[in-house]
Amino acid sequence: MQDDKFHDECGVVGIFGHPEAANLAYLGLYALQHRGQESAGIVANKDGHLRLEVGMGRVADVFSTERLKKLQGENAVGHNRYSTTGQSQIKNAQPCLINYSQGALALAHNGNLVNASVLRAALVEAGSIFQSTNDSEVIVHLIAQSQKRSFVERVVEALAEVSGAYSLLLMNEDSLIAARDPHGFRPLCLGKLDGAYVVASESCVMDLIEAEFLREVRPGEIIHIHKNGMESYFPFPKTAPKFCVFEHIYFARPDSTIYGSNVYSVRKKMGHALARQAAVEADIVIPVPDSGNISALGYSEESGIPFEMALIRNHYVGRTFIEPQSQIRHFGVKVKLNAVKESIKGKRVVVIDDSIVRGTTSAKIVKIIRDAGATEVHVRIASPPTLYPCYYGIDTPDQEELIASRLTQEEICRFITADSLEYLDKDNMMKVVKTEDNGFCAACFDGDYPIKNGDRAPKPIQLDLFGSA
Amino acid sequence: MQDDKFHDECGVVGIFGHPEAANLAYLGLYALQHRGQESAGIVANKDGHLRLEVGMGRVADVFSTERLKKLQGENAVGHNRYSTTGQSQIKNAQPCLINYSQGALALAHNGNLVNASVLRAALVEAGSIFQSTNDSEVIVHLIAQSQKRSFVERVVEALAEVSGAYSLLLMNEDSLIAARDPHGFRPLCLGKLDGAYVVASESCVMDLIEAEFLREVRPGEIIHIHKNGMESYFPFPKTAPKFCVFEHIYFARPDSTIYGSNVYSVRKKMGHALARQAAVEADIVIPVPDSGNISALGYSEESGIPFEMALIRNHYVGRTFIEPQSQIRHFGVKVKLNAVKESIKGKRVVVIDDSIVRGTTSAKIVKIIRDAGATEVHVRIASPPTLYPCYYGIDTPDQEELIASRLTQEEICRFITADSLEYLDKDNMMKVVKTEDNGFCAACFDGDYPIKNGDRAPKPIQLDLFGSA
Amino acid sequence: MQDDKFHDECGVVGIFGHPEAANLAYLGLYALQHRGQESAGIVANKDGHLRLEVGMGRVADVFSTERLKKLQGENAVGHNRYSTTGQSQIKNAQPCLINYSQGALALAHNGNLVNASVLRAALVEAGSIFQSTNDSEVIVHLIAQSQKRSFVERVVEALAEVSGAYSLLLMNEDSLIAARDPHGFRPLCLGKLDGAYVVASESCVMDLIEAEFLREVRPGEIIHIHKNGMESYFPFPKTAPKFCVFEHIYFARPDSTIYGSNVYSVRKKMGHALARQAAVEADIVIPVPDSGNISALGYSEESGIPFEMALIRNHYVGRTFIEPQSQIRHFGVKVKLNAVKESIKGKRVVVIDDSIVRGTTSAKIVKIIRDAGATEVHVRIASPPTLYPCYYGIDTPDQEELIASRLTQEEICRFITADSLEYLDKDNMMKVVKTEDNGFCAACFDGDYPIKNGDRAPKPIQLDLFGSA
Amino acid sequence: MQDDKFHDECGVVGIFGHPEAANLAYLGLYALQHRGQESAGIVANKDGHLRLEVGMGRVADVFSTERLKKLQGENAVGHNRYSTTGQSQIKNAQPCLINYSQGALALAHNGNLVNASVLRAALVEAGSIFQSTNDSEVIVHLIAQSQKRSFVERVVEALAEVSGAYSLLLMNEDSLIAARDPHGFRPLCLGKLDGAYVVASESCVMDLIEAEFLREVRPGEIIHIHKNGMESYFPFPKTAPKFCVFEHIYFARPDSTIYGSNVYSVRKKMGHALARQAAVEADIVIPVPDSGNISALGYSEESGIPFEMALIRNHYVGRTFIEPQSQIRHFGVKVKLNAVKESIKGKRVVVIDDSIVRGTTSAKIVKIIRDAGATEVHVRIASPPTLYPCYYGIDTPDQEELIASRLTQEEICRFITADSLEYLDKDNMMKVVKTEDNGFCAACFDGDYPIKNGDRAPKPIQLDLFGSA
Repeated sequence: MQDDKFHDECGVVGIFGHPEAANLAYLGLYALQHRGQESAGIVANKDGHLRLEVGMGRVADVFSTERLKKLQGENAVGHNRYSTTGQSQIKNAQPCLINYSQGALALAHNGNLVNASVLRAALVEAGSIFQSTNDSEVIVHLIAQSQKRSFVERVVEALAEVSGAYSLLLMNEDSLIAARDPHGFRPLCLGKLDGAYVVASESCVMDLIEAEFLREVRPGEIIHIHKNGMESYFPFPKTAPKFCVFEHIYFARPDSTIYGSNVYSVRKKMGHALARQAAVEADIVIPVPDSGNISALGYSEESGIPFEMALIRNHYVGRTFIEPQSQIRHFGVKVKLNAVKESIKGKRVVVIDDSIVRGTTSAKIVKIIRDAGATEVHVRIASPPTLYPCYYGIDTPDQEELIASRLTQEEICRFITADSLEYLDKDNMMKVVKTEDNGFCAACFDGDYPIKNGDRAPKPIQLDLFGSA
Repeated sequence: MQDDKFHDECGVVGIFGHPEAANLAYLGLYALQHRGQESAGIVANKDGHLRLEVGMGRVADVFSTERLKKLQGENAVGHNRYSTTGQSQIKNAQPCLINYSQGALALAHNGNLVNASVLRAALVEAGSIFQSTNDSEVIVHLIAQSQKRSFVERVVEALAEVSGAYSLLLMNEDSLIAARDPHGFRPLCLGKLDGAYVVASESCVMDLIEAEFLREVRPGEIIHIHKNGMESYFPFPKTAPKFCVFEHIYFARPDSTIYGSNVYSVRKKMGHALARQAAVEADIVIPVPDSGNISALGYSEESGIPFEMALIRNHYVGRTFIEPQSQIRHFGVKVKLNAVKESIKGKRVVVIDDSIVRGTTSAKIVKIIRDAGATEVHVRIASPPTLYPCYYGIDTPDQEELIASRLTQEEICRFITADSLEYLDKDNMMKVVKTEDNGFCAACFDGDYPIKNGDRAPKPIQLDLFGSA
Repeated sequence: MQDDKFHDECGVVGIFGHPEAANLAYLGLYALQHRGQESAGIVANKDGHLRLEVGMGRVADVFSTERLKKLQGENAVGHNRYSTTGQSQIKNAQPCLINYSQGALALAHNGNLVNASVLRAALVEAGSIFQSTNDSEVIVHLIAQSQKRSFVERVVEALAEVSGAYSLLLMNEDSLIAARDPHGFRPLCLGKLDGAYVVASESCVMDLIEAEFLREVRPGEIIHIHKNGMESYFPFPKTAPKFCVFEHIYFARPDSTIYGSNVYSVRKKMGHALARQAAVEADIVIPVPDSGNISALGYSEESGIPFEMALIRNHYVGRTFIEPQSQIRHFGVKVKLNAVKESIKGKRVVVIDDSIVRGTTSAKIVKIIRDAGATEVHVRIASPPTLYPCYYGIDTPDQEELIASRLTQEEICRFITADSLEYLDKDNMMKVVKTEDNGFCAACFDGDYPIKNGDRAPKPIQLDLFGSA
Repeated sequence: MQDDKFHDECGVVGIFGHPEAANLAYLGLYALQHRGQESAGIVANKDGHLRLEVGMGRVADVFSTERLKKLQGENAVGHNRYSTTGQSQIKNAQPCLINYSQGALALAHNGNLVNASVLRAALVEAGSIFQSTNDSEVIVHLIAQSQKRSFVERVVEALAEVSGAYSLLLMNEDSLIAARDPHGFRPLCLGKLDGAYVVASESCVMDLIEAEFLREVRPGEIIHIHKNGMESYFPFPKTAPKFCVFEHIYFARPDSTIYGSNVYSVRKKMGHALARQAAVEADIVIPVPDSGNISALGYSEESGIPFEMALIRNHYVGRTFIEPQSQIRHFGVKVKLNAVKESIKGKRVVVIDDSIVRGTTSAKIVKIIRDAGATEVHVRIASPPTLYPCYYGIDTPDQEELIASRLTQEEICRFITADSLEYLDKDNMMKVVKTEDNGFCAACFDGDYPIKNGDRAPKPIQLDLFGSA
């Protein structure tokens, strides 16, 4: 799957208690760059003074040596963003840093709230003034208006109002809170480095900074980290986990472990399952790089058809590619992918991708392969047809743009001019990821949304608040 | 092989006779981005008025829609640069554009001249003033001082003075010259698109812009393209071709065809040859991405040991990565590569790379693999030991930094803490690339330099100039 | 008086109902540039869509052709700022533009509120989040929290809370409000151009854009301008006018008419009065340019001593002058002023300035004149000694830095090494400006502050609100 | 005279032997800012390593603290530019810094060469490549091509080729040369500060940095300053001095002394002479600020008519003023000047300016004064009609744009709608400036050009070269 189909969501990282907190957050953002390339930012906490450096673009574009040096102190939170909501503007970039009655507060949020607009309207009606069009700002206002005394209680009171997906970091002048919504839609994990705590969207951050991976933050868990250690709270009623299966299929890095499983292994097994389910006689298996690499390897292993990396990806093509005028041609995919004719000519080709969204990219890829001399092109997709939009943090197009919601599998096959097209069955996919302890949201495939529009936010179980996990 | 070992050289592209010449040059530079990421520039020719847009950084950083729009006209030359000589400064970026007695002249050069400093000293002594520290500027001065009448003759007179490697584009107000040195060190190829001529460092440019690949520019050939067509000249005595073998090993894109062979196929065969030459019992073969990908596939194919992409590359780490202070750790390689523990744990691993330069990167990669749980790590290199610096356009480190020139193979193996280390023999390598018609420079492996220091430049065969095509 | 003594305050301009509203606001800001050079901004209203362009620096630095073009629509408000409160940061620059329950709102404020920090603390305690450290933002929050229906009523309710100096412009999606505090500390005037309304800090704006000067906005008046015309309200109890006399002495432009009098004429008369009060035998009268120009002319006229412009001002020295390292010398004043030796040598000199703040600048000026060969240097100041800080919008230094609050007149004379020093008496100054209808704040000279700390804000006279003026 | 009439030319400053050479050069450029606001630059010499910092805009725009810090070393040359020739581009900004056979060379030039294009064509024909379109670059090429051994001899050989106006600074790795053309068109003076030498366009530089004014550099003099002191050469035949009279009238700062006279005193006397020559009955005399200030004072003194500064200049209007669209009005002059109605109303006004170029500005000023209520407006110009363009360094418009070359004095009077118009007679002007020892170029008034087109450059008197002055 190419960048022009789904867009990434967000990545968050928090460091508490390390002399080079911002430097580690910076490294963490590098490791999470795939989760958002629109903006990057870090708030560092130097003796209670919080400072924000943020900018549009990738981590490498935003942070110079000078800017990093300005971020002193032992605690930090960082954020990579692709807008799930809100316009593409610097004022919507995170972390957001505000001052309120209790002092400074920084927030970094991955996920999407389903009742943000309702909450926002009520706050504005009562006189609140918003700085951004970002739904995360609602949380900040709710915390600011809470009349509770302690930081944790204010946060719980605020989160009791919101409904949807959040893997959230909140830093005040002397502590750090990591919170994950009761369904646990988005991943979030906890580690330790030289006595410091690390919280990050994916475990690859721990690998990079050589932190010890402790565990994942649990669905519904609120972890409060301060100079005397950490406490864990489960203030909301327990509910079934609804981990986003699409993280395994596309978003997360293959070297990360999320929801208890390694992503690379999951994708390999999806390739195995796909080969068993949708075999075809062919000469070579090739991946759409890089999203189809691992499932293609799995497909090749299981089917015995040789694996070739015969589509070459130009990694220098980023968001800033300017499409020259239409008088010549549309270059969108070609500038990113080229075929190795010598490997493809005269061959029957199985091409593997993780998903199809609008179908236009797949059509171009089939054409590139056919132009390179393939005699047959069989498309195999390592996930079910994408039928429904995501409301929990993945920026899918509207339903009418999802080709699988408009055309049958056969019609899609003709649209992309493949000789055959098969998707991995939902059941086969679920067999790969499902264990006793987990549970998944696959609403993009089956339309079964865990939180409906108009659902009330979960009320906190008051007495449980200061009981620990 | 990683970016911190060898650095890329340069890429050039020229378009003659297309209404969107600069747009095509821009796309060509994208396709050649791997050949140089320090600066990018295009000169476009609008009715004899040449305009330069150039900047530091990658193509995407340099060209905005506004800048591209300024580049009107039917002819254009573009250049991606990594400095082979000269400091990293905007004044050294190419194309260079100057005015001289015959009008405007733009130059884009890939390669390195061995007698540039001698020529420069003589020119300066006689009163010439240089704008850059770039050795290519010597050619411009020689053309400016020639008393010949025609553009081609001036260029021939200038090139008769220079010795070394050049794949060169020269554009004046009404024509374009493509020149390749008599040994043909660097690649250069010729294509056609809708009646327009295209000249580019590699054939992947033709694929991208959907131009027809005509042929490679021949060693010693000077092609003059103008509104009435093109002529080809061979003004210098014929000599043996000395194609840079390292283009096949590392520099060129796998989807390009250079020196008559497809790069992907060559690398695959190097993998095969390496597997035959240096077999080892193991459980998986993994490449150092992306430089080792294809030879690793070949090694796996030939040996039957399963292929795993168990090193994950972070493609967002570019030149601008800031290494945080040393108090924490050195992150250089780790930020680019991470291992998939689940795939490696308990396995005997063969890791394939294209070459070893300083050895420090290889040592870190072995450590990453071992830390991920490998029981054995066998390093296989798909080229011979790199013993000598290149003087023809590849920016290798000084000889004392080349680990193979200081340590024996056994010592290198211990230095990188591998269980075993084998390089592809030079003879086996040559068997893969050698045909009847070609000839290679492998001076970086064998020290056999085609042009010695102090060699005179080839005198042109005067009478032949307006002879053959 | 030089720029390094007092700093300017702010300038505001509003246009309602002109097709080139932002262009006129831009011109108005040029005319008001002397009132604030730290930042400049304009909000334009295009069919109810408000757009802000703002930046640090002078009008010329902030507005490019491109930025001006973005400001379409028939209504606009502009603001030049020197911070009276709040730090020097872009987030404190005005106009500020926010969204609240009733839509968009832009504010431009000249003056200083004395109870801003109390109001702010209460708002924050109740959960409001502020974007700036600017005291003007309090007004915006009060308007947002008002439960009144109409724009005017919300504004009145908000202003009923604030105490201090304000000449204020507020623009919403379909109208413009101009408000002046009950004492009328800062000037504000009203004009008309081709059917459009113009509101500006000084009348020189009307001259520039060739608008008809209608009248000054009255103390305590709230003018609501909309598509059907304008209404005027006086919702607060009438109180004595307290016009800032320092506007006449230094801030306002000589070509402006404020508080019913032309500034040039007032300064001339202050020069006359000073000559009568503090005569001295001398050969020439010279002004400290440009602040002393007009009173020096007046002094010369009345005394008959010839006027010479023997101090030359370098107008290119702005805020950005970098003082080179102290090893050489301190250049602060010298880089701005130089003496014409030929005019001064051997002469007894009377030098006229508008005021003395810290005394250091005056000392340097006396030295420059003496070094140029003056035999005597008599300093005459066209205002009384500056003894007290201003709390109503002029950024005076703390009292301890005001030389007149620490030294006697005789001691100041010695400090600045003058042969004699005289200030214009407060009574003589008041005779120049006072008429039957006006009243002045001269708290910087006499410490008689019209609003004390802790004074309550004036309660609106409810029933009068929708009676007209 | 306003900025939109004549444009300034250039200012140069050189420092030799001071630990803060670049800082002093920076201050010097501030003092010379009136001579050129298009670009500013400094080359500093740190132990033989020359470094250039240059940019478009004013000194304040170009030099940050960081940039100044990069300019270390004891010698420096600085340059403010308004292009007398060459386009407005950074490559034409000075100082220019090049490398040639003898090492580094920096050049800063005030003036204009009349045979630059001929020399340039010859150099280019012989193969020289120029970096700029600046005529000063010719001098650099001539020095580079000289085969003389010593720096001074190379410079003399180069200057023997050039014809026209130059006040020139040349800095190599260990010395500084100051040269003034044989006619001495442009000013240049010499000073000393703490043992260091200072060379600058005007004496106001010496005042600012508190250097001792030694003397002016003499026409035809070449001063070589090095670590052992300085030598003076007069290598060219002696010729009559032709000082630019326009420096006294408009360009130079009033506090400078040039050609042996103080500019302020000269302008005052021109005012006296004008009052005697062109008396008129009137109520007030007002200057066009700032160019007419001093002659207006002189006119007032001599005539006894009171002086009023009734035109107020907005000093914040610089080159960057954007003229809003023509739908409203043309604001060019109005945005810079406003009249004080109270001073003008009902008065007969004499308005004094230094010169009239195109006449459009004068027409607008007359209108402004009349609109302010003047009953009569009499224009008096403190120089003769400007009839001819300058070829020696002042950027006058083409002759057809000079109103005095197209209309009679009476017609101009009507064009500008004045009640009367008088210019200072050339004879009366000359009486003010002429002494026994000097001589002036007044070609802009009388067309008597000291150097004709096609005149040969002066041949050096060889034997005199190493005789001293």
